[in-house]
Amino acid sequence: MKKKNVVVQGLGFVGAVMSLVVANNDKNQYNVIGIDLPSNQDLIDKLNQGIFPIQSSDVKINSFFKEAIKRKNFRATSDIETYSIADIIIVDINLDVQKGVHDENLNNDYSVDLSSFKKAMRTIAENCKNDVLLLVETTVPPGTCINIIKPIFEETFKNRGLKQLYKIGHSYERVMPGPNYVDSIKNFYRVYSGINDDSADAVEQFLKTIISTDEYPLTRLSNTNATEMSKVLENSFRAMNIAFIQEWTEFAEVAGVNLFEVIDAIRLRPTHKNIMKPGLGVGGYCLTKDPLLASWSSQYLFNSNKLLQSEKAVVINDEMPLHSLKTVYNHFKGDLSSKRILVLGVSYLQNVGDTRYSPVAIIYEKLINFKAIVTLHDPFVEKWDEYNLFTESNENVLEKEYDAVFIGCPHNQYLNTDFFNSILNKNKSLVIFDPHGAINENSINKYINHSLKTIGKRCLKKY
Amino acid sequence: MKKKNVVVQGLGFVGAVMSLVVANNDKNQYNVIGIDLPSNQDLIDKLNQGIFPIQSSDVKINSFFKEAIKRKNFRATSDIETYSIADIIIVDINLDVQKGVHDENLNNDYSVDLSSFKKAMRTIAENCKNDVLLLVETTVPPGTCINIIKPIFEETFKNRGLKQLYKIGHSYERVMPGPNYVDSIKNFYRVYSGINDDSADAVEQFLKTIISTDEYPLTRLSNTNATEMSKVLENSFRAMNIAFIQEWTEFAEVAGVNLFEVIDAIRLRPTHKNIMKPGLGVGGYCLTKDPLLASWSSQYLFNSNKLLQSEKAVVINDEMPLHSLKTVYNHFKGDLSSKRILVLGVSYLQNVGDTRYSPVAIIYEKLINFKAIVTLHDPFVEKWDEYNLFTESNENVLEKEYDAVFIGCPHNQYLNTDFFNSILNKNKSLVIFDPHGAINENSINKYINHSLKTIGKRCLKKY
Repeated sequence: MKKKNVVVQGLGFVGAVMSLVVANNDKNQYNVIGIDLPSNQDLIDKLNQGIFPIQSSDVKINSFFKEAIKRKNFRATSDIETYSIADIIIVDINLDVQKGVHDENLNNDYSVDLSSFKKAMRTIAENCKNDVLLLVETTVPPGTCINIIKPIFEETFKNRGLKQLYKIGHSYERVMPGPNYVDSIKNFYRVYSGINDDSADAVEQFLKTIISTDEYPLTRLSNTNATEMSKVLENSFRAMNIAFIQEWTEFAEVAGVNLFEVIDAIRLRPTHKNIMKPGLGVGGYCLTKDPLLASWSSQYLFNSNKLLQSEKAVVINDEMPLHSLKTVYNHFKGDLSSKRILVLGVSYLQNVGDTRYSPVAIIYEKLINFKAIVTLHDPFVEKWDEYNLFTESNENVLEKEYDAVFIGCPHNQYLNTDFFNSILNKNKSLVIFDPHGAINENSINKYINHSLKTIGKRCLKKY
Repeated sequence: MKKKNVVVQGLGFVGAVMSLVVANNDKNQYNVIGIDLPSNQDLIDKLNQGIFPIQSSDVKINSFFKEAIKRKNFRATSDIETYSIADIIIVDINLDVQKGVHDENLNNDYSVDLSSFKKAMRTIAENCKNDVLLLVETTVPPGTCINIIKPIFEETFKNRGLKQLYKIGHSYERVMPGPNYVDSIKNFYRVYSGINDDSADAVEQFLKTIISTDEYPLTRLSNTNATEMSKVLENSFRAMNIAFIQEWTEFAEVAGVNLFEVIDAIRLRPTHKNIMKPGLGVGGYCLTKDPLLASWSSQYLFNSNKLLQSEKAVVINDEMPLHSLKTVYNHFKGDLSSKRILVLGVSYLQNVGDTRYSPVAIIYEKLINFKAIVTLHDPFVEKWDEYNLFTESNENVLEKEYDAVFIGCPHNQYLNTDFFNSILNKNKSLVIFDPHGAINENSINKYINHSLKTIGKRCLKKY
């Protein structure tokens, strides 16, 4: 049987791994061609040289990449002509939100600019086969497949003099970079839909060939609005629950309550197991914007005059790191100049090197503004792309002395390890800022003059 | 060993059952005296006549009551002298919130009036033994034990010339009236604290004698602010998650999305298992006010200038039933006059007869205002106290004809039962309003001219 051509549009955190998963499908049914913009030629080159562009602790990434090279069924390109040979096109490009400032009622003047997303859809429609299956995985404002993508295809196909035989489906990914990067696609639940039954059937048939659907059954929803809404809803649910706890964290602090112990107690109730703990902030590509996509859709695609309250969750979460920073600022009585501060972890995700919208960025920027001397460390982030900065090696970190340690991301390397103990040992007097409540107090018990400050805990214990 | 005297202040939903549980403790260690205001003499009389004042489906209520009568260790009174013989006093009185109107930013001008609660505390302090253990179970604004109760005891004991030997603890209940009414106290997790270590120790010792703490270990928190906050936090968490979904329900309806199927799909993720489903509204004594107690405390006991966003959840939830009502209103094109509407279930809780702040109340009142002819049915509520109204028997309900059925509370009696089918059979053309999504569509499939309207589902299917 002739292999089908699957073109993956967008080779970022989702598209890159999605390409490998498709290329590695059990029956070797697909030729996969990843496509990205010419401005991302370095990414394309890397992939074609056999280098996976994203640092990952998942060993499957390597073996999947090797298998694809062995099968010779994966390559990357920027050539849009590629769309013309695709049987299936998977859309994994970004759709960004531009945030502005917010007012006292926590309303943000963000905007959603669909122009580059529309342009990408038009490029496909202008070049694709007339019976292509377009599978959109990008997180989009609910209503996008029907109200934005379909009209583009309709119009373009009309201009091309083609029959309207294309199929459009939507099935969002739940990709988690990290140790289960591949399995977050291959071995996880999926929701899907199509603009009509044929489209939904085609999506189902395809997904069954790349996902372990026996163990993780697919869920078909009635229309594309539903799957699009499902994705932004599940992320808004998380964002909102994080924002909720941020407010209570601040309340707990003024009331002298250790919110960590309170939440441990509440979590014993099965109905309350998912209540969040205090933390530094929200990072990553999804939770920081998806509630805004939803609220935007509600207003601009469905003419509702109601803002979703979830919008405010984004504002509250965006400001979370400033709250932790205030603790640092107050501890040093407002003078951070020349204070030597070691920031451990710059990623937003534990044990993963993902710095997209990391809340540590705000901490870093503010510390620099306050003229602190900042040392950055992260075992998963060699180079912090957003700042074009290299993090320091274990050796370098251990050589220096510090006034404070700030736990930016509680990677395992920092939790009761020799590395962490060496830092504590080396420094005579140290304050540890731990917004995640990750450090065991007893582990620093033996260090005279060391203190631990946790967000959500008012207590500053001196040992 | 001489039995200890335990006085339970307040004989409502919590105090009544708490009294029985204490009186039934394994080692028969306690004499229990329930006390309530003289204005509740009927309640007191009932209890002394061996009649439990709350209708309940829990068979344990009966057996516990019988055992207490056999042991002769429970009686009720309004005599405040009783406090003078108490070794332990359990506070189970109400602390209410008066709600007002809200502005466009969903801020409500509610007020918390502590005067009757303070008066009750003063009555105890003026009459109790000097080494009494006061165990507060009432849901109070965080800070109440330390900032309100303790000062009352300090001052009153000083005036009485007593040493400050009282102990004050806080341990909130998680009582659920219904089939597990007794077990919601006896076999469930508890959080506790005291204003000092002696107080916390005394609470622990007492709770161990009435709760199955081997299976459901107690959690001790650092101070009374923490346990008080824990209670309002866990209820605010629920209230906020319900409000969140209400907003998305309205969004789903304008976008033509069946939110029930979306949420079923999302719940497959372990991290999202507790996401709520659309519904009629929030009832009961706790979720309708606890977020307000928290926000009030934050402002008035801890001088924070921040309102908690959870406040707005209360406003959103209070308005939820109006959304369901709009569906009814629109269906009948704004003319409900003389429409015969059967309301099935007036309780706020499934399979339980608890009408406190039931969202069905708003539905009922509005239907009456619109001059509909309303028939009320609820197998668990013989008399709807708030309206001094008796619900109708199965026979009466089946005799009449209706234009519409409104599922107020989805008791099991309404789900695919002969009773429900008889209603469907009897009526030629019927619209069923089902805000809970409880009725199986297929079950009404065979009834020509019947239709089902669900909140959160846009579809109105005609069979």
